Amino acid sequence: QPWENMARVPPLLTDLYQFTMAYAYWRAGRHDEHAVFDLFFRDNPFGGGFSLFAGVHDCLLFLRSFRFADEDVEFLRSVMPPDTDPAFFQFLRCLDCSGVTLHSVPEGTVVFARVPLMEVAGPLAVVQLLETSLLCLVNYASLVCTNAARFRLAAGPKRKLLEMGLRRAQGPDGGLTASRYTHIGGFDLTSNVQAGFLFGIPVAGTMAHSYVTSFTSLEEVWPQTLSAVNGEHNPVDIISLTKGWLSRVCDLLGAEPGKIHEGELAAFLSYAIAYPQNFLPVIDSYSVGCSGILNFCAVALVLCELGYRPVGVRLDSGDLCKQSLDVHRVFRLCSEQFSIPAFDSLIIVGTNNISEESLAETFPCHVVGVGTHLVTCTKQPSLGCVYKLVEVRGRPRMKVSEDPEKSTVPGRKAVYRLIDPEGHPFLDVVCLAVESPPEAGLPLSCYPLGCNHTALSVTPARVTCLRQEVFSKGQVRMGRSLKH
Amino acid sequence: QPWENMARVPPLLTDLYQFTMAYAYWRAGRHDEHAVFDLFFRDNPFGGGFSLFAGVHDCLLFLRSFRFADEDVEFLRSVMPPDTDPAFFQFLRCLDCSGVTLHSVPEGTVVFARVPLMEVAGPLAVVQLLETSLLCLVNYASLVCTNAARFRLAAGPKRKLLEMGLRRAQGPDGGLTASRYTHIGGFDLTSNVQAGFLFGIPVAGTMAHSYVTSFTSLEEVWPQTLSAVNGEHNPVDIISLTKGWLSRVCDLLGAEPGKIHEGELAAFLSYAIAYPQNFLPVIDSYSVGCSGILNFCAVALVLCELGYRPVGVRLDSGDLCKQSLDVHRVFRLCSEQFSIPAFDSLIIVGTNNISEESLAETFPCHVVGVGTHLVTCTKQPSLGCVYKLVEVRGRPRMKVSEDPEKSTVPGRKAVYRLIDPEGHPFLDVVCLAVESPPEAGLPLSCYPLGCNHTALSVTPARVTCLRQEVFSKGQVRMGRSLKH
Repeated sequence: QPWENMARVPPLLTDLYQFTMAYAYWRAGRHDEHAVFDLFFRDNPFGGGFSLFAGVHDCLLFLRSFRFADEDVEFLRSVMPPDTDPAFFQFLRCLDCSGVTLHSVPEGTVVFARVPLMEVAGPLAVVQLLETSLLCLVNYASLVCTNAARFRLAAGPKRKLLEMGLRRAQGPDGGLTASRYTHIGGFDLTSNVQAGFLFGIPVAGTMAHSYVTSFTSLEEVWPQTLSAVNGEHNPVDIISLTKGWLSRVCDLLGAEPGKIHEGELAAFLSYAIAYPQNFLPVIDSYSVGCSGILNFCAVALVLCELGYRPVGVRLDSGDLCKQSLDVHRVFRLCSEQFSIPAFDSLIIVGTNNISEESLAETFPCHVVGVGTHLVTCTKQPSLGCVYKLVEVRGRPRMKVSEDPEKSTVPGRKAVYRLIDPEGHPFLDVVCLAVESPPEAGLPLSCYPLGCNHTALSVTPARVTCLRQEVFSKGQVRMGRSLKH
Repeated sequence: QPWENMARVPPLLTDLYQFTMAYAYWRAGRHDEHAVFDLFFRDNPFGGGFSLFAGVHDCLLFLRSFRFADEDVEFLRSVMPPDTDPAFFQFLRCLDCSGVTLHSVPEGTVVFARVPLMEVAGPLAVVQLLETSLLCLVNYASLVCTNAARFRLAAGPKRKLLEMGLRRAQGPDGGLTASRYTHIGGFDLTSNVQAGFLFGIPVAGTMAHSYVTSFTSLEEVWPQTLSAVNGEHNPVDIISLTKGWLSRVCDLLGAEPGKIHEGELAAFLSYAIAYPQNFLPVIDSYSVGCSGILNFCAVALVLCELGYRPVGVRLDSGDLCKQSLDVHRVFRLCSEQFSIPAFDSLIIVGTNNISEESLAETFPCHVVGVGTHLVTCTKQPSLGCVYKLVEVRGRPRMKVSEDPEKSTVPGRKAVYRLIDPEGHPFLDVVCLAVESPPEAGLPLSCYPLGCNHTALSVTPARVTCLRQEVFSKGQVRMGRSLKH
């Protein structure tokens, strides 16, 4: 898989203080002490009630390849304080993740705030060095995956969702990450070709306004003929055929032929000749009602006459709800008037700065394309996953902050997901790893978060471990986790 | 330079529709028509009055290496409509940017809304294919560079600004892009080591809370001795020396020794032994006033006694303004009481979720670290640069939208920056490329944007071209533009 061969996350992609701390541990002889970090977030993003945890796959690739090259170490030598003992750089040169064990919830799992989603255990200096890179790999991935899931919930299960945010992402790789994790979060398609190449996500797209505005007149259409789909007849003169259909459409809709842009018609025709089976133009370059929809219908009717199936239209501005209802009406009129049933199955793609809220208004669209609000997560552009030390040499560790929200829960933990008799998960339980696990059919006393220390008794029908060991002894465990 | 050797932006990192459009142009024999696109944005971000344009360097690297490999073309063959003529893929295989000319404002220039910042001219199919990648490369770079400049303006010219947003960026490369362009925008330092490695940005950082909480008692400090900086005397027992200073500091400040965390003192001491010349601990792991500042002063006084210069402290929670004023007061007291002038030049680093607004409240901090709000640009997480066709075969092209704001200005343009007699730029003028340029000392009649077609007469003392030719005939022009 091409993605796995790309050395994506270099071990220097971290904060400098990880190295100065590692040095201080090493200098005090503490670097090999066994330490455990919990990774979790304190609040669900977007004011919501859940998150999808993502980025696990990338973390595994990172751990697997975590090793310092000579040039990395030389660079560190040049930026760390000059009194750093040179033997430390030798130590770094030999580091890898063979002593690290990662337990994680699986990629794309629905998770909740304050539950330790990953547990990273291993030599103190190494697991400290991993902090920033792991946070960087899961924070945005989980955020954008969760955002995508919220768009999916708002869109309902049937409509297709297209991610098209590359140009608004944080650079090339931000765009790739967005394409990848919005797909896991429930998007069907991406416009990003490289994401299709690397991750096998289905890609989609037909034309932009620039294509339409690049045409001026029908003289630019070439070739000016098209054969029927069955190839039985000679190529027909498509210009005159289209003009005939256009005038019939104008009559049907009571439209003024003088307002129709000839350049737009030329663009549509030219595209239809290139892709007679994939005709889906953007119809709002000038005016949907006075030009775009008329030109579309004329060309689509020509295609139907020749046995092809036009696909539909894209709307990219204005009131998508009103416009798509209007467009539906025109399609139905044409279908009835000209007895062209193919017009009943034309689709509408809507793509105008759509947010989770405005998605509801696009209900007449079959496909919705989302860019900016999806990839930048406008409503909350960051997720605050943190990485907190909870145990060193078997002794629990805690940060006692003056802000009680920021105090950490000490000790090594286990996380169980309780399932009810209908098979639905109903509670995630965090307890100490040394406590005995909840048992199916037995009542369990637990303290729900935020319920002021009031105990609750629940009886699970089934108990599952939420986290799995996904990396140990330098190897990725459970190959399935890498299949995304 | 390592960065330039990384094949960063593959030509597939674009929207699929660029390829379907390119095919339709090719099929109609229009692919080599000379076309011109303008790149600009419609509104300054963050409700502000200016932007910094950035990402030019990356665009040049992209253009220089723009070429399809066999595997790229094979992938495209698999995702483009099946009726695509196979000869098109041959055509793609041979494409490059040798026919493309890019005019751009220089990296990091102050620019304004609706001014064409880049002009991309060349064969229609090629310049169309470049759209998404160029937008992706300049949108976030310009946004985060502008955001950094706003933080710089809020911080004033003297204080140091540290970028530390890697863990909240859009994945690894989002973090690198942020580090790089916030440096151009006015940040002095980054925590991101890889950004130091690739771009030569100064890196900074010392320790996190996990380092502090990993210590429990003074027994974990090792070695327990330190030599004086001049090495004249034998190593001294640093534990008992510190205990002595700690009790004097407690007396001075009227503090309760019982509230002091021994683990924190051990962490500070251990770090100071490792880096006696770079002692800058984070002092809010437990309580700044009851523990952190006391432990800091004790260790820093030991270092001073041995001839070292402690650097300062970091505050990472609570009211940074109040706390840093308190810390300043303690430093001054120690300096006076113990006659240690080095305590007057200790610095305070503040790093608690700082925004452009809250930056003003951190005025007593010498260094301010900014993460989330800087790299995610919380106030406006995307910049809407667009790429609009303005000329084909020498004929101006225009998109006439029903939304007048979205209509484009047709034709090839020139952009001049007018300078007043004091040497200050005072107006950017956009005119058609065929018009004669403004002349120094001669009055010029122009129409300011948003002034309802009222002409204004101005007389520049000097006239400069805002854009330069930075790429042509497959080569980067003006090597200076690549020096960032």
